[in-house]
Amino acid sequence: MKFSPLVDELIKSLQCLPGVGPRSAQRMTFQLLERDRAAGHKLGQALSEAMADVGHCQRCRTFTEQTLCPVCDNPKRARSGQICVVESPADVLAIETSGQYDGRYFVLMGHLSPLDGLGPDEIGLDRLEQLLQDEAPQELILATNPTVEGDATAQYIADMCRESSIRVSRIAHGVPVGGELEYVDGTTLALSLSGRREL
Amino acid sequence: MKFSPLVDELIKSLQCLPGVGPRSAQRMTFQLLERDRAAGHKLGQALSEAMADVGHCQRCRTFTEQTLCPVCDNPKRARSGQICVVESPADVLAIETSGQYDGRYFVLMGHLSPLDGLGPDEIGLDRLEQLLQDEAPQELILATNPTVEGDATAQYIADMCRESSIRVSRIAHGVPVGGELEYVDGTTLALSLSGRREL
Repeated sequence: MKFSPLVDELIKSLQCLPGVGPRSAQRMTFQLLERDRAAGHKLGQALSEAMADVGHCQRCRTFTEQTLCPVCDNPKRARSGQICVVESPADVLAIETSGQYDGRYFVLMGHLSPLDGLGPDEIGLDRLEQLLQDEAPQELILATNPTVEGDATAQYIADMCRESSIRVSRIAHGVPVGGELEYVDGTTLALSLSGRREL
Repeated sequence: MKFSPLVDELIKSLQCLPGVGPRSAQRMTFQLLERDRAAGHKLGQALSEAMADVGHCQRCRTFTEQTLCPVCDNPKRARSGQICVVESPADVLAIETSGQYDGRYFVLMGHLSPLDGLGPDEIGLDRLEQLLQDEAPQELILATNPTVEGDATAQYIADMCRESSIRVSRIAHGVPVGGELEYVDGTTLALSLSGRREL
């Protein structure tokens, strides 16, 4: 025996969300049906609208329902002549929250991963190359994740720009602020030492 | 800075789900937009349909989009003359999965909780009283949760039936199968001892 068809369908559909299994899907379904149908309605609508209308920014590839995202659409952001390359829109938000960057972005929407069929074209490097020619920025800041794939992607982009006059930099890796040396892993400490700066 | 309006709206709406905070909502949004728009579309539709069409079974109060749920609609389930009272539709599924019960159900959709404004009428006890008169079952099995509120609710229903000739029983509480005595709490062990049966 199962629940009624519509309830079953909702429980099954909710499991497309990352981290949601049959149990949590059931709990979510009952919570919405019992306590908050208005919120459920709103969520349904928000989902349908976002899935239908959200596309990619023509310049930086982040998610937006306009042709250009708010950052690319802001002429002030072009002044610094910097482009920061990140893996995902969430990384853009993280950097914006730091308040230390006023240039533009380029969002790869992933990283190089040949085994998964993600080559240079899939992460938009052809588009990035075109952008570098068109905008001729002064600096390209590589802010991909400090993982094997992220590092490889950064290296690939750096190699790509070797011929041009663009300054290519990689964000610093080291001990995070507020952390304790005792609990930092060896690789991070090694990077932190090799990347030391004079005071 | 935030994401674009539709993306923001989706991230905010997802937080109506129990256990979903801003971070998971963001991860869910990006996962759906990047990898699985079809599933997102389907989820949006399932939500809208369920919120609009799912109501309560006229007889047992569980969730269904029909007048009667499949269990109440099945004449075979009336034969045993038993009604099992549970707190939620998930409990119905749990009991059905055990395969040991072929009677009907009555779903309270909660438990007595005067402080939250949940009195006898809110959990449908007026409806249950009517049902007991109409169907005159042989046995009423109280399978509310073994919590303070669940026990109080069971006691209240038992008192309600004192005048009638219906046999009222409570499911057994004790050591769960596969558990180890060493790790079972004192109250459960005490109940398990006081509820012992001759072999």
